[in-house]
Formats: sequence, C-alpha cells, structure tokens
Amino acid sequence: MAPSLEAYEDAVSLQPVKVQQTKINGTNGVDSLQPKESDKHDLVLRVFRCLIADLCEQFKGGHPGGAMSMTAIGVSLWKYAMKYSPSNPNYFDRDRFVLSNGHTCLFQYTFMHLVGYRQMTIEQLKSYHSRRTDSICPGHPEIENEGIEVTTGPLGQGVANAVGLSMATKQLAATYNKPGFDLVDNMTWCMIGDACLQEGVALEAFQLAGHWKLNNLAIIYDNKQITCDGSVDMVCTEDINAKMRACGWNVIDVHDGTSNVQGCTQAFIEARVSDLPTFINIRTVIGIGSAIAGQAKAHGAAFGAEDVANIKRAFGMNPEEHFVVPDEVYDFFREARSRGEEYEANWADIVESYTQKYPQEGAEFKLRVQGKMPQDWAQFIPKKDDLPTRPTPSRKSAGIVCNVLAENLKNFMVGTADLSPSAKVDFQNPELKTACGLNGNYSGRYIHYGIREHAMASIANGLAAYNKGTFLPVTSTFFMFYIYAAPGIRMGALQGFQQIHIATHDSIGTGEDGPTHQPIALAALYRAMPNFLYIRPCDTEETAGALIAALNATFTPTLISLSRQNLTQFPQYSSREGVQKGAYVFVEQEDADVTLIGVGSEMGFVVQTVETLGKEHNIKARIVSFPCQRLFEQQSKEYKQSVLRYKSKAPIVVVEAYSPTSWERYADAGINMSSFGKSLPGADAYKYFGFEPTVMAKQIQGFVEEVQRDGIESLRGDFRDLNGTLGYGTKDEH
Amino acid sequence: MAPSLEAYEDAVSLQPVKVQQTKINGTNGVDSLQPKESDKHDLVLRVFRCLIADLCEQFKGGHPGGAMSMTAIGVSLWKYAMKYSPSNPNYFDRDRFVLSNGHTCLFQYTFMHLVGYRQMTIEQLKSYHSRRTDSICPGHPEIENEGIEVTTGPLGQGVANAVGLSMATKQLAATYNKPGFDLVDNMTWCMIGDACLQEGVALEAFQLAGHWKLNNLAIIYDNKQITCDGSVDMVCTEDINAKMRACGWNVIDVHDGTSNVQGCTQAFIEARVSDLPTFINIRTVIGIGSAIAGQAKAHGAAFGAEDVANIKRAFGMNPEEHFVVPDEVYDFFREARSRGEEYEANWADIVESYTQKYPQEGAEFKLRVQGKMPQDWAQFIPKKDDLPTRPTPSRKSAGIVCNVLAENLKNFMVGTADLSPSAKVDFQNPELKTACGLNGNYSGRYIHYGIREHAMASIANGLAAYNKGTFLPVTSTFFMFYIYAAPGIRMGALQGFQQIHIATHDSIGTGEDGPTHQPIALAALYRAMPNFLYIRPCDTEETAGALIAALNATFTPTLISLSRQNLTQFPQYSSREGVQKGAYVFVEQEDADVTLIGVGSEMGFVVQTVETLGKEHNIKARIVSFPCQRLFEQQSKEYKQSVLRYKSKAPIVVVEAYSPTSWERYADAGINMSSFGKSLPGADAYKYFGFEPTVMAKQIQGFVEEVQRDGIESLRGDFRDLNGTLGYGTKDEH
Repeated sequence: MAPSLEAYEDAVSLQPVKVQQTKINGTNGVDSLQPKESDKHDLVLRVFRCLIADLCEQFKGGHPGGAMSMTAIGVSLWKYAMKYSPSNPNYFDRDRFVLSNGHTCLFQYTFMHLVGYRQMTIEQLKSYHSRRTDSICPGHPEIENEGIEVTTGPLGQGVANAVGLSMATKQLAATYNKPGFDLVDNMTWCMIGDACLQEGVALEAFQLAGHWKLNNLAIIYDNKQITCDGSVDMVCTEDINAKMRACGWNVIDVHDGTSNVQGCTQAFIEARVSDLPTFINIRTVIGIGSAIAGQAKAHGAAFGAEDVANIKRAFGMNPEEHFVVPDEVYDFFREARSRGEEYEANWADIVESYTQKYPQEGAEFKLRVQGKMPQDWAQFIPKKDDLPTRPTPSRKSAGIVCNVLAENLKNFMVGTADLSPSAKVDFQNPELKTACGLNGNYSGRYIHYGIREHAMASIANGLAAYNKGTFLPVTSTFFMFYIYAAPGIRMGALQGFQQIHIATHDSIGTGEDGPTHQPIALAALYRAMPNFLYIRPCDTEETAGALIAALNATFTPTLISLSRQNLTQFPQYSSREGVQKGAYVFVEQEDADVTLIGVGSEMGFVVQTVETLGKEHNIKARIVSFPCQRLFEQQSKEYKQSVLRYKSKAPIVVVEAYSPTSWERYADAGINMSSFGKSLPGADAYKYFGFEPTVMAKQIQGFVEEVQRDGIESLRGDFRDLNGTLGYGTKDEH
Repeated sequence: MAPSLEAYEDAVSLQPVKVQQTKINGTNGVDSLQPKESDKHDLVLRVFRCLIADLCEQFKGGHPGGAMSMTAIGVSLWKYAMKYSPSNPNYFDRDRFVLSNGHTCLFQYTFMHLVGYRQMTIEQLKSYHSRRTDSICPGHPEIENEGIEVTTGPLGQGVANAVGLSMATKQLAATYNKPGFDLVDNMTWCMIGDACLQEGVALEAFQLAGHWKLNNLAIIYDNKQITCDGSVDMVCTEDINAKMRACGWNVIDVHDGTSNVQGCTQAFIEARVSDLPTFINIRTVIGIGSAIAGQAKAHGAAFGAEDVANIKRAFGMNPEEHFVVPDEVYDFFREARSRGEEYEANWADIVESYTQKYPQEGAEFKLRVQGKMPQDWAQFIPKKDDLPTRPTPSRKSAGIVCNVLAENLKNFMVGTADLSPSAKVDFQNPELKTACGLNGNYSGRYIHYGIREHAMASIANGLAAYNKGTFLPVTSTFFMFYIYAAPGIRMGALQGFQQIHIATHDSIGTGEDGPTHQPIALAALYRAMPNFLYIRPCDTEETAGALIAALNATFTPTLISLSRQNLTQFPQYSSREGVQKGAYVFVEQEDADVTLIGVGSEMGFVVQTVETLGKEHNIKARIVSFPCQRLFEQQSKEYKQSVLRYKSKAPIVVVEAYSPTSWERYADAGINMSSFGKSLPGADAYKYFGFEPTVMAKQIQGFVEEVQRDGIESLRGDFRDLNGTLGYGTKDEH
C-alpha cells in the first residue's frame, strides 16, 4: 500500500527526531525549513565545491564536475531527506543510497565526512586518487567500505541495484510488518547522471520499477546534459519525462537545481509520499564555478591550479587555503549523528515490542537481520536414495532440489527472465506461487523479471546488497543468455554476494534453437572469473552437490550449468561430496591407459566411450568427473594427484562440448568444440560435432597409442584438439 | 531529408513495377488494393496457418504461435510493402527484413517459399526441426542462408541490427545519391515480439533511431501480449506507444491486426513516407485457430495432432491433408519474382546512367557494392620508422594507425560509446569530424553511440550485414565495457563479420577507476570465442600489426586490446609481421634457462625482469611476445616449437595481469591475477599485485631452480600460479 502523507507523518512520529521534514503540513513541506538553516546553504555549497576542487587537484585526477553540480542535491539528501545513522552505517532500517554515476564518488565520500561517518576522516578524504593502499576512497564506491551500499561504476547498473534494494524493502515489509509496527520502512535513493539514461540495464530496470509500483524508490537525475563526448543532445534527444511517465513513474522537475537546496528537498519529500516510483529531473551545471563549467572537460580531470584558485575566488574563499571546512559547516551537518542514533534506538524499540507481541515472527525477523540460514538447512536437500534414477534433464534435477530449499528457507528469492517453464525453479507449492511485485502484493518470493537478463542479475545484486544474508537471490535463464547478464553477474562476484544462478540449456545439447542459443565460449568467462563458482553437474546427485556448494559459498556467487535434455543418472558413481572437491574419481581403473575427464551432460558419452575403448580397442580407461574447476583448485596437491594421476604415464583427455579453453590446465588433449554450434536435434548436434562414443573411442585410441609410442613427455606444449582445430578460419564465405 | 509522399511517388515512378502501392493517392494508399486481391487474403491466411501447424507437427517442435499471429503482417509485407527480388536475394537496393523475434523463423521461411526464393523449396521448408544437416531452415534465421539479412534469436538485438541497416542506407545515400539518382533507397523492416520491448539492447537502439530520425526504419510490433511465462502484463505495463513517441518515433496502431492485411498494408505505406522512424503496434492473437490460441502454450511447442486437425477444420481445410498449398496461393505470391526482377533491372539502369554522369563516384560506388577494399590499402599503414619511439599508450598507437586508415578507406565506419577522448579513434581531420546521424546529416563516418555498448556492437552488426564489405564497422570503448557489448560481439563472430573493436584501458594499468573498470576474466571469453581475434599488442609496431591482421581477417571480427598508460616502445624487438603469426621470438637467448611470455602492456615488466634475472640471479631468459593466441594456433608445429621451444628443458612462464585461463596451453607457470583489481594509480596497482621486475625475478628464479632440481617432467598437471592462488576464497568478509 502506498503511504499517504498522513501515513508518512505517522511513521515519522514514531521516530521523534529533529529532521526538518517531520514538520511538513501538506505537500509543501519545505516551507518548514528554518530560515536560519537556509541561510547556511550558501556557505555550505561554496565550501563543499572548493573542497572537491582541492581534493581532485592534489593528485591531478578524479571526477570533480559532477560532485560540484550535485552539491545542492547532496545537502538536501544528507541534511534533510535521508534516514541514516553515521554512528552505525549498517543500521538496518536506514534509507539506502546508490550512486549509480559512481565516478562522482567524491560527492558521497565528502558528505559522509561532513555528517560524521567515523572512518571517513579528512585524511581519508584526501586519500582519493592517492597511492594509499588502505584508502576507503577508491575511484568508485566499493561496498567493502563503511557506508557504501553497493559498488558502482559500470553505468546503468546502479539503477537496477536500487530497484533490487527497493524490492527487498517491499518484500520484507510485506512479510513482517504488522499494523503499528513498521519494522521495515526505508526508502532507496539513487543518483544517476546522463549516462545511466542510455544504458539498457537501467532502461530495463525503469520498466520493472514502474510496473512493480516501487513507491519507496526515488531516482535523482543529475541532468547536466554533458557526457565524455560532449553535449548529450549529440546522442539523446528523447523526452525523458514523458518516457518515464509512460513507464509508470511519478516525475518531478527541479528546473534550476544546481544550488537549489529548497527545491530539491521539496522534491524529495514529494517522492517519499508518492504512490509511484519517483523520477526527479534536476537541471544542473557541471563543474559550477570553474572556467570550464558546463563543458565535457569538467567531467573527468582536475581543473588545474589556476582554475581552482578562480573557483575559490568566485565562491568567496581564499585561494591560498586548501581543504577548508569551517566549524559551522561541520555543525550544520554533524547533528546527523544524534539524529541517526535516535532513529536507530527507536527502531530497536519497535523490534523489541514487535517481538513481544509476535514472538515467532520476531525471532524469524531477527534471524533474517543477522542474515543467518536456519541451522537445519541441510535436511532440506533430498537424499541420494530419494533422487530419480531414470534419465532426467539436470534442469529438472535442479528444480527438485531448489524448490524444496526455496520453500523452506525464507531468504530464497527466486526469479526468472521469462523462462519459468524451461528453468523449472518456479515454486511448485501453490501457496508460494504468488509473484512478488504484482498488484501491490510483495509477499511472494518469485520474481518474474521479464526478458531482461541484465536487469535480473543487477536487481539480484540489489537484493543481496540490502543486508548480508537477508536474501539469497536465485536467478534463472538459458545459460547462453547469461552473456546478457554477465556485467551484473560479475558485479555480484566482485561484491562477494551469495547468489545462485540457474542456467539451463547449456551446450549444443540445446538442439534445434541452433548456434545462437548454444554456448561455446561462455563457460571460459565464468571459469576465469575471480570469486565465482561455475558448476556443471552430470546428474541429479551432482546437481544436489552443486546446490550444497552454492549454499556453503557465503561470499561467492555460483552458477549451476544445466541441460535441457535427459541425462543418464549414475547413482553408482556420482557423488555430492565429490562435487564439493571440484573433481573426483568417477570410475576407477587400475593400470589405466588413459584418464577421461567427463563434465556435465557429456558424461554419458564418456561412460559409453570407456566401454567401447575396453571392448573394441582393449584400452583401459578411468573416468574423472569434473564439475567445478575453482573448487578443485582449493584441494591439496595430494588430492589432485590422486584424482588426475599426473605422475602416471597415462594421458588425460577431457570431453566437453565447449571451447577447450581452461581445460589445458588439467588435460593433455580434448574433444571439444572449435566452432559455433548447429541447429539440429540435440542428439544429432552432438553427433554432428563428433560427440559419439565410437568416434571418440577411435580418436582416443589413436592418441593413446601415439603417447605410448612417443612418451608422455612428447605432449608438452602440444595440447591436442582431437576433433578439430580452433575456430579461426572455420567460417566459410557466404 | 525525409521523403514526402510526392518524393515517394517519384521514387516509385522510377521503378515502374506492378506493386499495389505505386497507385496510392494521398496517405490512404490501401484503397487501391484490388478487390480481387483482397478476396484472396482469406484463403492465403488460412492456407498459411495450416501449413505452419503442419510444419511444426511433423517433428513435434518449433514455434508455431507467432508465425500464425503474424500471418497478415507477412502477407502485407511480401505481397505489398517490401521491395525485394526472390530471383536475386542479394539485389543491392532491396528492402532489408529483420526478424528480431527469430524463433518465429518459420514465418519468414514460409513466405520466402511462397514468393519463390529458389532454394526455399517445399522440401526445405519441411526440413525445419528435422535431422537434415543441409537444412536452410534452422531454428533461428541464419545469415548464411539465402535471403536472410541477419542472424537473430538472442532477443532485442535484431532491433539494433535493423538500426544499423537503416543507418547504412542513410550513410550510403548521403554519400552517393545525386539529384535524380536514388542509387541507395531502401527501407528496413524489423519484426519484433513482446520480448524485444523488454531487452535493454532494443531500448538503447530505440533511443538512437529516434535521435537519428531514421525514417527509413519501421519496427513492426507483433503485439500478442504473451511470452513464455504467460501474459505480458505480469512483467510489463508501460504505455509503449507513449514511450516510443517520447523517443522520437512515429507511432501507428493496427488494433485488430491478426487477419487485417489491409490495415497492416496501410500502416506500412504510412511508414514509408514518415519523416520519423515508425513503430507499428499491431494487436494479434498467438496461435490463432488453435484450442490454445492466446495462451503462452502456443509459443514454443507443436499443437499436437488433434489440435492441428481442429485448426484445419476451423480454417475450412481438410484435416486429412497436410502441407497443402493451392496453386492460386502460389499464383497470388509468385508474381513477386517478375516484380523483383524489374526492380533489379531498373536499379542496374540507374547505376549505369549514374556512372556515365559521375564516373568517379560511380566507380567508387561499384567498389563499395562489391565490398572490396582498395588494392593499395597497405600503403596507409604507417611504416615502422615513422612510429613514435618515446613511451606511448597503445590506445594512442591505435589512433595513429586507425585514423589514417579511416580517413583513406571509405568503408571505415568508426564509432564510440561516449569515449572519444579516451579511445582516440575519432577523426583528426576536421573535414571528417562530422558525426553521422546528427541534424539530418548522414554523410559523416563517425558515430556517437552514446553510453550504449550493447547497442553499439549490435548496430555495428547491422552495418556489416548491409552488404559484405560495404562497411567495415569500428567500435570503441573501455575493454571492461566490452562485457556489456559481449552478446553483440559474439553475434558478429557467429556471422563472420569483419569488424574492428578498439578496446582501451585494458588490465589493472587502468588505475584509479578501480576493480569495476579493471578487466581480469574478460579476455578468457574473447580468446575462447570461435571465429574471433583477440589481439593485445605491446607497442605501436605491434598495434600496427594488429590492425593489419584485422584488415586481413575478412570473415572474422578483431578486438584490439589497448593500454590507457604509456608503454615503452621496443622498435628493436617488436614486429608487425610477428603479430600475424600470433606469437614470435621477441628477445632470443641461446641456452636459456626459461622462456618468458610477455603480452601487451606487461611486456615492459618482462623486459626488465629478464635484465634483473641476468644481473641478479645469473638466469638466462628469452622472451616471446604473444599478442594473439588464435593466430598462433594457425601456425605449423615447427613454428610453434621454434617460438616456445617445448623440446628444451627450459620452463615457460607467462606474465599477464589477467586471469591465467587460456595460458595453460602454452606455459608451465604464470604471474597473473587471481582476484579482482584495486583502485590505485596504474603503476601502484601493478606493484600491489606483484608485477614488479625484482619481485617477479625472484619468483621466476625459485621456479627455475625447482624445475632444474626436479626435472621439467615434474610440472605435468601442475601449472603454477607464481604469485597467488585462484580467486575463490579471496573475498574477505565485509
């Protein structure tokens, strides 16, 4: 339910703090700004801008222009509009602030300093663009640092993160709030520049926020009409306000916003009481005060000593003095500390009285706040004996395991980019089928993201960023379309979010959809990505193992790569414990002539090939199942040796219908893909590219004989692509 | 200049063919549709839909629903609205048709059959979803097949491809057309479904098409309000028409479009004479005639024999008969052949008389049509002796080479995602600085794409798809943001387009922007990608080599990975010819104890490390420069051995500030990145992660001694990450 103005006042009255906007009557709340306070705005704006110019000038770098155009916005946010607590930046019910135009981070850092975030000392501020390795002022905001909600920089994604943060609030509030107990009641404020209005991920997120009616979200558009290349009208001439309205947003203009604290504050207060998400279009001037104000040059470089001096003169400051912050500026801002502490104390009171009245919900809520999984989560993973033994697509296997987890673990927040029927992670329990965000209902835990893979990943980052562990976001689409989502998936890895990405239709087994839908090279990206688990299980037991690995990886996202087609089950060989080690002996064979590495949906071919090798070619082969390279890298040298037997004379051959890239670390030869795929029924596509036991057995036989003849040493530096050469030049003229 | 209705009639009068719309008077041109023709629409619609149902039913697969909802649109396009020639699908001035909802490909294939594309026999049509490896009816349209303009399937991208195709027309027309000679005068028609309105890449492309006023572009929205998950209002409730108008589009509604050939045709004729790009919103019913019409189930599966029989009964056809196409349906469509031949003959006449009047332009235009580069292109590559010898960022090196190429070769169509000042590929020649697409001027060859990396890549695919070789699209942004562009870049590789992607700010040398901007894993994707060249040159000479390689790769896109920071130049070692072979001996050393592989901006460290190894540790090292793995794979075994000396006892160590993934094929050990980067000045970031000659020399010394002690055989299966372990678990709690 959208808060009315009255509801807003009620909410505020629960928190008897001294913020100006508590006194609003009607929509024109800014009238209550004390003249005494307003008088100080001019000084504050002048001091802030000169400080920014100094901070960029010291090391001749950084992005000063935006921080200076946005100063009034910042004063309005940190002085009047936002609910936060500098003493405890993680205070749970704080408003979230996302700087989607992350290159203007000095803007945020400087306000954090002024309002009294304890780690953000003036020395730290001065470490921006310095050589200090312990700086908390990196070139873009980083979540590891106190008071930063989400790491930003890759443009557009912050908007989707903010949508995720707003959705997190809505879902928690719908789940736990009770009449008189607004346990969860925070806004999300998201700053954007001109660039974020051009990136597709933001455009996708705008659609969703409007559709979901996320009225606790405000996008603040620093409308400078300048990007790196120059004037925005070179690349964008749309009517952005009309467009946002068409997307279901409340739109507010602040026409002359560069120094208009009062106008900004009024807009922000209106945003708080809107029943739609609010887009606040604030016209500003980049690098205000500088000789290059209003120009692209003011974006990404220091102004130079002369211009900095001019800026100070223009703002009535002494050009000889640097980093000047008068006490009255600190006084103006630092009351935020006591105000924040009162917010926090008040919230703690609410939680306590709530818990007294609703003990069960209260206990559960506290667990969510702590971000802890229930101790007994392992019991929800189906036991090996309960798994199907007939051929099953691993996407269905994942559905079986994921569904029971999602039903029982309240933090599972599952979603799909329009592939519910394919990805199989939608809730089977009818009571849980309610989609989150539809028709004003936010209590569901299944999100229909639409065909918006990038927004899905980046919204999932927002859900994860809300509070560590409160949500465990699950996304799903075809593996191939995790290439659309890749920029967001990467940001999840960089930020250490626990997330589960359910990627179905991996490999050429996808079949008739053809090369556009058959991933060949994408696994190489996810296998190479730091702090990321790419797991490709071969049957249901291994899929259960993959989900256990994902649940244990509390600071790491996991992508589980699954088949569209039926896979033979190998209960006699496969092992969930083996998956935890990345690779394990699947079929042992003493005195083996060759070790075959089988992965995911190609394991069935490998098992058949080993039979053929024995029967037809008198070659003894052992099989290693290798669902996750990264987990294998964590194992001891002894374990690795026991699995792959590097010290034997037997060569190692990997079979996977992807590019061989990354397997050269473990194998001497591979049967892999050297080109893009082909539109054929899955089984035929495999056959077309040589993934057929009789064909592979012959290739392996030839290879083994060669190695026996020439010695294992002959293989050094000569990884063999047994069924082809790499893809350049494979493209015929057309 | 936007064509007026009169101009349109003039244009048509140059082509005295029998299309219906030649007779239009005023905007209500559809009045001229012959009643006799209209009478046949009902039959045609019925036959077409039953044929679709049969084609999907035979192998129990495919996407019938969309093809059936769009039938009237197709009749209107192929019978009345489009200019094309079945006898010569590559006739240059044809209208381009893009099926962005590529899964409905049967729609296109079937119309191609009906109008008489010679390869599209009824047998071929029946090969859809079959096991035939020679089918030209794959699950999504593929450019290799006659009459397909662009490969589609990954949703949203077709819209951007269509924008690229429209821009290609505009640019060629602005360059070559003369009064009375509309050499280039074609429309682009792009079909989309509900999904394409959700994907970010399409939303980016909509902005650009509106901004560029591409009035030769029509988007035809098959508004079924159904996607895989169900009703579109579950994920999208925006006012799409208002939104498109806000983006600068002409919007036309066809309210009841499922069988409304006349309404569609009228809309298409209006689109032809619009002075804005046109968005035609046509309300249809998915799977019309089926028992599951209007439902998501009609999207991606055959209807089943019973429902197919019902469909036939509903449409007055005999359920016992299959694949029925009455002669009068063929007669209705097949006049397209003679019409197309007349179009073509007429165009050939125009070209000839143009060439007589403007011999120079005519000759140049013919070269463009043939897609040939001038024979003398090599002369425009600066010679080694003319290159700078002082430290230079390789992005600047690329600018030096690329600029002179772009100036002299008319097919270079250069662009940037708002990073002109950084990527350095904007034209230095003031006469060429005109941006293409601004203020009605399309003669420029520099495109400001805005901050829209994915659209940039996909528009570049459209430019390349217009006609092979007519344009050589060049894109540019930070290497890290080629992760946004990856879905489009991949489609360029899949389609065999020659393209050059200029990727600056690679590696942690990017510096202060921090881990969000420092690529670690992305090179693994592009190195693994089939039919793709990822080239990372170490200095200006190698950068020239990279551009030569790109120009020689006429069926393959190339990404050139470049540094932000200054790089030492190595004119004594570096070689453009070496780059063509992927890797080459940079510094030879007989009796070397170790071979070091240097790549890109880390080469400087490698050269220093070798000096330190010799002076401080008495270790002899040789250096291999390795700018491109894929080109190296093309070389003979003998050449590979001569470069890397696998048969010696000297181990091989690669130094690159990326994930080691892909180097294990060539090296025994690596000094690479195991985690994400860090915000520090570039030189400090390198130092922080151990890319420092003294540190590396010690690590290499220890490694070499170990290998000398234990033997080179000891390294098997034990690739050493000399400066760390892989990234999982490196994430600290925060």
